[in-house]
Amino acid sequence: MTPPSRVAILGTGQIGTMVGMALRSAPGPGVGEVVAWDRDPAAREACLRREGADRLLNGPEEALEADLIILATPVAQIVEFIVELGPRLRSRQVLVDTGSSKLEVVRAMQRWVPEGAGAIGGHPLCGGSEPGPWSADPALLRGATFVLCRVRDDPLSMGTARQLVEMLGSTVLELDASEHDRLLARSSHLPHLVAAAVAEMSGAVPTPALFSSGLRGAVRLARSDPAMVASFVCANLEEVRAATRELSLHLDRLLAAAASGEEYLVPELEAARLRARQVGVG
Amino acid sequence: MTPPSRVAILGTGQIGTMVGMALRSAPGPGVGEVVAWDRDPAAREACLRREGADRLLNGPEEALEADLIILATPVAQIVEFIVELGPRLRSRQVLVDTGSSKLEVVRAMQRWVPEGAGAIGGHPLCGGSEPGPWSADPALLRGATFVLCRVRDDPLSMGTARQLVEMLGSTVLELDASEHDRLLARSSHLPHLVAAAVAEMSGAVPTPALFSSGLRGAVRLARSDPAMVASFVCANLEEVRAATRELSLHLDRLLAAAASGEEYLVPELEAARLRARQVGVG
Repeated sequence: MTPPSRVAILGTGQIGTMVGMALRSAPGPGVGEVVAWDRDPAAREACLRREGADRLLNGPEEALEADLIILATPVAQIVEFIVELGPRLRSRQVLVDTGSSKLEVVRAMQRWVPEGAGAIGGHPLCGGSEPGPWSADPALLRGATFVLCRVRDDPLSMGTARQLVEMLGSTVLELDASEHDRLLARSSHLPHLVAAAVAEMSGAVPTPALFSSGLRGAVRLARSDPAMVASFVCANLEEVRAATRELSLHLDRLLAAAASGEEYLVPELEAARLRARQVGVG
Repeated sequence: MTPPSRVAILGTGQIGTMVGMALRSAPGPGVGEVVAWDRDPAAREACLRREGADRLLNGPEEALEADLIILATPVAQIVEFIVELGPRLRSRQVLVDTGSSKLEVVRAMQRWVPEGAGAIGGHPLCGGSEPGPWSADPALLRGATFVLCRVRDDPLSMGTARQLVEMLGSTVLELDASEHDRLLARSSHLPHLVAAAVAEMSGAVPTPALFSSGLRGAVRLARSDPAMVASFVCANLEEVRAATRELSLHLDRLLAAAASGEEYLVPELEAARLRARQVGVG
């Protein structure tokens, strides 16, 4: 399978820029040209200086000249781009996004991208808490999980998306869009909100001498970029709500066990410790 | 102020053992003798081998021959020791504990320690997630906050307790017992339960490829010793319950903001980020 001769990246924040950097330095035949655009002039200039693109576009519609178009903005803007550019996609062009929630994106693709053209939902699980092209590091993509979600039965587009992920050095995980959103609400989106809530409460403690290293770990996710977190929480709100209700039930069960006595709480905490060990050391 | 000629430590887990190690290697005149006991023979032998004591006692009642008695067991056993040994304390003897919740301990001290003898509630904020004498490291005490809580108006005993904290290399923070418990519920006890609940939910995600480094930080506290966490949660249950209700309100507010739109959620997350930065990097 020949790599696409032109890749357009719309959105040159941390993810868009590092995808461009990784594609331009990928081993093998590689892509012919990487072009990019961002509505923020400073972000697109930074992408060019970080060598995340061969050249900049004059506007998003010029992306329609590429074989592969990657939407790497927050989810709300991804959907806007799909509405705007999707209907104008031609046969054999493929659209892939990198948004953190997938059902809304995949539904927009189903609606606005014509049958002949290709569209695949994507979500690379990487990136640090600092946004922007200056924190782009293509090493973060190597070995990272890159979720791909089918939009319709279209093996050719999935092949192109898989080839993209391979060039980035990431590992494909194919998931149904709603399953992705259900799982991510629990493994990422809700934990971000919980960290924010714990930070609000602990930060209100007037005695920094009482802060522990454990607490610092617990609030680390609250240091993430607010615009990024708001973007995926709002795009996945129903699942995040459901996950919040589950969390409340878990906390209620722990409190009820505690009320019965330490010997009832310990086995619950033992089970949680096993789960935490499965999540790994961080 | 002369250091106590004999210090008895009851409970030779991580904290008891490292307090003994620190006292025996403290600069200056130092204490005459450190004696220790634990109901677990393996734990007391380990304390001796770690040089956390000069010798072991044959039973807890022999601690009554010391000038300073340190109770370093989980809170429930601290209270049992206060009931058992408190009434037998003589004038100029001082009892200090190291439990993670203070109101229950201080109330037991008020009730069971006679007026002539001394008693001070204590809580060193240090220690890792691994319990036991083999993870004792006196370096953890250096620079750590050591909360002291008055039991009654007794400057002499407070002086002895302050001298103890100084010999450990820790920093005294005097707090009212109920204020300690209110703050610790928010900065430590609830975060432990939340980490357990998030670990339960995320651990149930069948796809480890979806776990992020942020999530690993969020569940780190769930890797703590279950017996230790159960001990302080149960001893501080009313405050932990109140803190859980507050957390729910915070989460509800974040969800309501998200329902109104990203532009409403972002400022909430900005505020949480500021708080998280106050808590520090961990």
